[in-house]
Amino acid sequence: MKPEDIAPAPSDAVIALDAGAAVREAVFGRRAFKLARLTGLGLPVLPGVVLSFDCARSLASGGPMPTLPLDFNAGKLFALRASPEDRAWGGPASILDIGLNADMLPRLAARIGEAAALRLMCRFIQNYAIAVAGLEPEDFEAFSHIAPRGKPDLDPHALRQLLAAKRALYAEETGAAFPEDPMDQIEGAARAIARAWNAPSARILREARGAPPHAGLGIIVQEHALGSGQGFSGTGHFQTVDSRSGAPAVSIAFTPAGDAATRPGALDEAALAAQAPQVLETLHLCARTAALGLGEAFSLEFALADGRLAILDAVPVRRNARASVRIAVDLANSGAITRNQALLRIDPRNLIEHLHPQIDPSAARDVFSTGLGASPGAATGRLVLTADAAQAAAAQGEPTILVRVETSPEDIRGMHAAKGVLTIRGGMSSHAAVIARGLGLPCVVGASDLRIDAALGAVTTPDGRTLRVGALITIDGSKGQVMVGAPTMIAAELGGAFSELLDWADAARDMGVRANADTPAEARMAREFRVDGIGLCRTEHMFFDEIRINVMREMILADTRVERRAGLDRLLPMQRDDFCELFEIMRGLPVTIRLLDPPLHEFLPHGAEGMAALAAAMNLPEAQVRARANELSEVNPMLGMRGVRLGVVMPEIYEMQARAIFEAAITVNRFAKTPVVPEVMIPLVSANREVELVKARIDAIAATVQREQDAELTFKLGVMVETPRAALRAGDLAATTAFLSFGTNDLTQMTYGLSRDDAGRFMRDYVNQGVFHEDPFHVLDVEGVGELMLIAARRGRERNPDLTLGLCGEHGGDPSSVRFCKLAGFDYVSCSPYRVPIARLAAAQATILARGGAEAKTTG
Amino acid sequence: MKPEDIAPAPSDAVIALDAGAAVREAVFGRRAFKLARLTGLGLPVLPGVVLSFDCARSLASGGPMPTLPLDFNAGKLFALRASPEDRAWGGPASILDIGLNADMLPRLAARIGEAAALRLMCRFIQNYAIAVAGLEPEDFEAFSHIAPRGKPDLDPHALRQLLAAKRALYAEETGAAFPEDPMDQIEGAARAIARAWNAPSARILREARGAPPHAGLGIIVQEHALGSGQGFSGTGHFQTVDSRSGAPAVSIAFTPAGDAATRPGALDEAALAAQAPQVLETLHLCARTAALGLGEAFSLEFALADGRLAILDAVPVRRNARASVRIAVDLANSGAITRNQALLRIDPRNLIEHLHPQIDPSAARDVFSTGLGASPGAATGRLVLTADAAQAAAAQGEPTILVRVETSPEDIRGMHAAKGVLTIRGGMSSHAAVIARGLGLPCVVGASDLRIDAALGAVTTPDGRTLRVGALITIDGSKGQVMVGAPTMIAAELGGAFSELLDWADAARDMGVRANADTPAEARMAREFRVDGIGLCRTEHMFFDEIRINVMREMILADTRVERRAGLDRLLPMQRDDFCELFEIMRGLPVTIRLLDPPLHEFLPHGAEGMAALAAAMNLPEAQVRARANELSEVNPMLGMRGVRLGVVMPEIYEMQARAIFEAAITVNRFAKTPVVPEVMIPLVSANREVELVKARIDAIAATVQREQDAELTFKLGVMVETPRAALRAGDLAATTAFLSFGTNDLTQMTYGLSRDDAGRFMRDYVNQGVFHEDPFHVLDVEGVGELMLIAARRGRERNPDLTLGLCGEHGGDPSSVRFCKLAGFDYVSCSPYRVPIARLAAAQATILARGGAEAKTTG
Repeated sequence: MKPEDIAPAPSDAVIALDAGAAVREAVFGRRAFKLARLTGLGLPVLPGVVLSFDCARSLASGGPMPTLPLDFNAGKLFALRASPEDRAWGGPASILDIGLNADMLPRLAARIGEAAALRLMCRFIQNYAIAVAGLEPEDFEAFSHIAPRGKPDLDPHALRQLLAAKRALYAEETGAAFPEDPMDQIEGAARAIARAWNAPSARILREARGAPPHAGLGIIVQEHALGSGQGFSGTGHFQTVDSRSGAPAVSIAFTPAGDAATRPGALDEAALAAQAPQVLETLHLCARTAALGLGEAFSLEFALADGRLAILDAVPVRRNARASVRIAVDLANSGAITRNQALLRIDPRNLIEHLHPQIDPSAARDVFSTGLGASPGAATGRLVLTADAAQAAAAQGEPTILVRVETSPEDIRGMHAAKGVLTIRGGMSSHAAVIARGLGLPCVVGASDLRIDAALGAVTTPDGRTLRVGALITIDGSKGQVMVGAPTMIAAELGGAFSELLDWADAARDMGVRANADTPAEARMAREFRVDGIGLCRTEHMFFDEIRINVMREMILADTRVERRAGLDRLLPMQRDDFCELFEIMRGLPVTIRLLDPPLHEFLPHGAEGMAALAAAMNLPEAQVRARANELSEVNPMLGMRGVRLGVVMPEIYEMQARAIFEAAITVNRFAKTPVVPEVMIPLVSANREVELVKARIDAIAATVQREQDAELTFKLGVMVETPRAALRAGDLAATTAFLSFGTNDLTQMTYGLSRDDAGRFMRDYVNQGVFHEDPFHVLDVEGVGELMLIAARRGRERNPDLTLGLCGEHGGDPSSVRFCKLAGFDYVSCSPYRVPIARLAAAQATILARGGAEAKTTG
Repeated sequence: MKPEDIAPAPSDAVIALDAGAAVREAVFGRRAFKLARLTGLGLPVLPGVVLSFDCARSLASGGPMPTLPLDFNAGKLFALRASPEDRAWGGPASILDIGLNADMLPRLAARIGEAAALRLMCRFIQNYAIAVAGLEPEDFEAFSHIAPRGKPDLDPHALRQLLAAKRALYAEETGAAFPEDPMDQIEGAARAIARAWNAPSARILREARGAPPHAGLGIIVQEHALGSGQGFSGTGHFQTVDSRSGAPAVSIAFTPAGDAATRPGALDEAALAAQAPQVLETLHLCARTAALGLGEAFSLEFALADGRLAILDAVPVRRNARASVRIAVDLANSGAITRNQALLRIDPRNLIEHLHPQIDPSAARDVFSTGLGASPGAATGRLVLTADAAQAAAAQGEPTILVRVETSPEDIRGMHAAKGVLTIRGGMSSHAAVIARGLGLPCVVGASDLRIDAALGAVTTPDGRTLRVGALITIDGSKGQVMVGAPTMIAAELGGAFSELLDWADAARDMGVRANADTPAEARMAREFRVDGIGLCRTEHMFFDEIRINVMREMILADTRVERRAGLDRLLPMQRDDFCELFEIMRGLPVTIRLLDPPLHEFLPHGAEGMAALAAAMNLPEAQVRARANELSEVNPMLGMRGVRLGVVMPEIYEMQARAIFEAAITVNRFAKTPVVPEVMIPLVSANREVELVKARIDAIAATVQREQDAELTFKLGVMVETPRAALRAGDLAATTAFLSFGTNDLTQMTYGLSRDDAGRFMRDYVNQGVFHEDPFHVLDVEGVGELMLIAARRGRERNPDLTLGLCGEHGGDPSSVRFCKLAGFDYVSCSPYRVPIARLAAAQATILARGGAEAKTTG
């Protein structure tokens, strides 16, 4: 049957695969569309027809079978294949070899040999019985005496016996003889496929994969090439890119036809090139044409019959996250797709896999415990239980994994020293998780089934397994797994296609991407990731240095304002140096500095030992130090005396910080071409009066410093919106400030009434039971937190049209949250340095989508 | 000058006091209005005129003095008095005796004696010089050689000397002779009063008292009765109600005229009745007429000149909070005002003074420390530092004040036993404050300057004062004071006028008032306060009983679901009994039961001792109990594993509670005429799916119990809106539930990001600096929390028009918050039993105001 023989179907129910653009995806499915397109491009696709979604629906409920414009007299076989609108939704398995019957058997035997023909017929009857007539595979076990396992190649006599037995079984189980008319076979198979698609279990499964409730299925009825014949025959797969790297590399798997006993093994490219160079050349041409025509790298399923090539199907090449980037970039560079299409094709979250070492997918994992994957990448090291041990080991060049119940600011230097961090408590936004993401350090949190036995120096599981200090363990911060031993790793990769794609992203996006960076090291890292500035510099982390923490503690424990000022005077030059370095690194880019935020007790030592040491250092009775520390302790520190509340009650702290910022900016500006414009951000605001009080003092400090230094200085003052009330009152806040930056971690905590430090305990339960679709600390809750952001953005911009809007929570590195910010009209998002690439790509996608999607590809 | 002699003033600038309704309050001030009204009612008010606000404003800036229709030839004296629109705004002092001059002196001497006339003239010149010409009182010290202190009654010769000296001083200091023309004197005095009113300091002062920026002042020029003459003369005050109780009681203070040497002392009622019965009768008539005509109990300022009565002024009787209720009720019962007017006249917060003993205002206070007044009333007792000590003392009948750093649920029984509670930490909504208000127990929290020295068994202040255990102390839970010793008290009073007023409130209001009641004792108290139901029964308080707490703890520490269920099975009958009792007490009224809310670790013992005892009781190693407790501990318990999160993760707890509720309701309904309709409330919801999950289980339990008991049951399921997200998603929540009740304590915490347990430390600073107008845990923050409530109310009712809306936070007892709820269309508010009277009155006021204010009084 040649294409020109097929008359157009009278209605939309059936259409030929070579009908070109009329084979619409939304009516006949993706596979039909693709085969039609490949046919149009001149690939040797076997001809066939496709039944529409409506037609399949009608068949499933007993509607009439349309007439198919097929020629059954040419001795051809057919395959029925599912053609859903999206391949990801799955679909019933193909039914092959249709058309085989008693009449045809001799003709087929003449072509491919009697035994092969009989085997084919046996296989067909069994498959058909199971797929169409509803028999069970077990029903055919009974024939094992004729065709025992391990002895597949029966002689024609035995095969004839087997065939007769299968026909008899079919008749007995179904009450009807096996259908001999090819048209009856096709109708039966089409109805079976249509019914299978409409079964409730299939529907549930595909809806879970994102299909709409009434997703349709096209059914393709296509000539089937057996890949067998007297000449060079067989079937195979062919692709021209590597599934693991995405780089150009030919991969071919060809199985020549023939009896198992006589046929050669599978052939590789060289062998095929030697035997059939023309075929190989044609395959290359087909792959190139398919890529250009459909904008995708395909794996081609093909058959050779007597040396003649037929394309059976083409499926997108399987690929991992890294390969997908390389393939998209190469497709764009070859003109097969536009750069914007390439940008839209990559899930930004997959970029993570380029940034960190990963466990080789094929490596074995001895999983010891599972928590939440809080910071991606994998790391192997010796188990340590204290920050000190991690530092000591690092000094010896020994990699470690730091295991803690939860981390506190005191552990930060230990975290710097370790290769990975594991905590027993905490959620996606716990201290450990946030710091680890900032450091690009693999981290698993909330491994709540583990116990630390400090006396024993070990970690134990409820089922009695024990890991002692010094044991070699590996954590997978993407999957949240903790493993014993050291599985094989795949290294990070930041150049090549990854870097090229991000260049395109920067060109495409019109929303800024900044980094949350507290230290010079993080700022440098951020610049390497080509950020547009620092969106959040948490000044408190600057105080945990060994020397500073003591001054800080003396300041905190000061009894009088005079003593407190003395401590602050000593901290001032240190802070100023920090800011000088930061401004130097970020030269020409904005730097947003958040004034001191955490409650003061976070800076005090936790244990009895630390308290004693502090008392000794301060030359004070231990009881007095302890009493003052107790006074500062809080029931709910997250909702306590922190942020701007410190700024209002102890104004001298913010005054010192403002002075340090302004003096540093003036110092750096003396030698800089582009002046630094520091952005000062007030945290945890809930009332406008807080901003007024702090603003008045900061403006005064700015005036004083400018006078003292005889220099001009421009700075911006803004508010960190972290409380629902600040969001609701954004109009007032925007009236006198230059920017609002949404601290979505805290805003999420308060909108939900959910502590990020404590949520780990039930977050998995909650996500599993569908209470939350996703962890709201991970993916922005658009319905609640998002609504507050929209209210705030609207009210803020109404009052102050020049208002800059940013987001500086962890959500800045989550693609859907970035998209939301773009839709909400934000100017930038800011995230951990290691999430900057994700944010850059997500911002580009959001910009492209906001402009109406990827423009059509202009080339063929 | 008789009234009919005065022609109406040509313009609005001046009007006679007898011009009736033309003397409008908004143009001439309250005092002028009142005097005009009293004149119209026939009281012997001395005639006069009043300058309008505009006229006084013009005078202050040098405008012309209008012509006054006054007769200066009759030898009369005048007084100038301030007439602001509201008496509370204050105003310049009156200037008396105007009209005195050299011409008049002989005539006056003939009437009242030479010495008296000279003394008057001396006094007038000095007063005028100070009030009008700006001389300082010290300028007149120089005359002490003529008129030494302690020897006031000079002879006429000396008086003439003094007079001349004062005239000379006046001329010297002002550069002009003392004005002799009465009209000049009046003009000078009027300008002085007008200027004093417009001085910036006066403006600031009255704005602080609530005056608008451009508040006007009328100036009254009125004939002045000297209260002196040859016959029975003098001046006095007269009122017919008692200032302390508000009960009818004549109070008179009359000072007869005459030289200090010869005149008798002040006369009381009996003496006046004996000397001038007609005058006394007239005064009674005047008081009665004034009350009926102006709807107020007045203190009348009067003068007798030769036996003739003149009313100089009438000011509302001074009264304390209790007296104000009695006076308003009596006025309404006499027909002077309507009941609605009486209701509107009382500040609901003042009702508190009826409910609790108060420290006698005249008693001396030795204040030791000051915190926040967290639960009103005063209490005296021996200082104790532990709940156990409070219980032991109570067993001996010894009253105590329990002093703690902060309280926890373990202290509740000690709080029951104590007469008052004092904590060092915590704000208006801390545990201690909430529980104490519920118990009607005086409580001071956040007395942060105190230290507890447990070793010493004492409480100390920073300045070194010490109070040992056993010391007698008193706390004033209204003012937040802690005192040494036992000042005199005034007892509570719940009957009489208080009860009558509240009856009227109930008749007037159309918004429900429920009580937050957890125990049968509180429920009974609530019924005594005539509530419309229980709006919040916190089931957790039921578990702190000695026997139950152990079962509860075993349940919490259970390792498996089976063990947990076993514990719950033991708790079930106890809970059921609680609910039976509650339903019996509240029969016929709705009872809203909140499912378990606090994090489980709140139920565990805190100290090492308690932990050891629990381990022993459970027959478990102490380390294991401690480890489990540690596991449950949280960084921010307020935002942790509590409320519906428990219900989702450990569903068996809510299932037990639902079963207990339903079984109890069915049991009580078997014998009840009006069936109980329990309302089950789910706490701390942040996502609708939480409600769906819990609702499905509760509906199932309801069905099971009905089947088991073979009985019908109606119940309502609702959501406690405590998170901003629940407020935003109220539309979803309302779709499947019957009511939303706003837990404004937690909603405030989360909207502000402010822990009520930790806010005490800076709340005073914040209110003092005007960051918050009021403590938002005390007065509902209408701009933030209130907006969330309005959003929720609108979205909830849109989705479910039958939705019931309530408030069950502490704000339910705050009048302005109650008013807000009425405006927001709420069905009820619920508050601590002891705040129910406040809420009833506030709800009545809100209803009356919403209907357009008090209807006009129909009687004269």
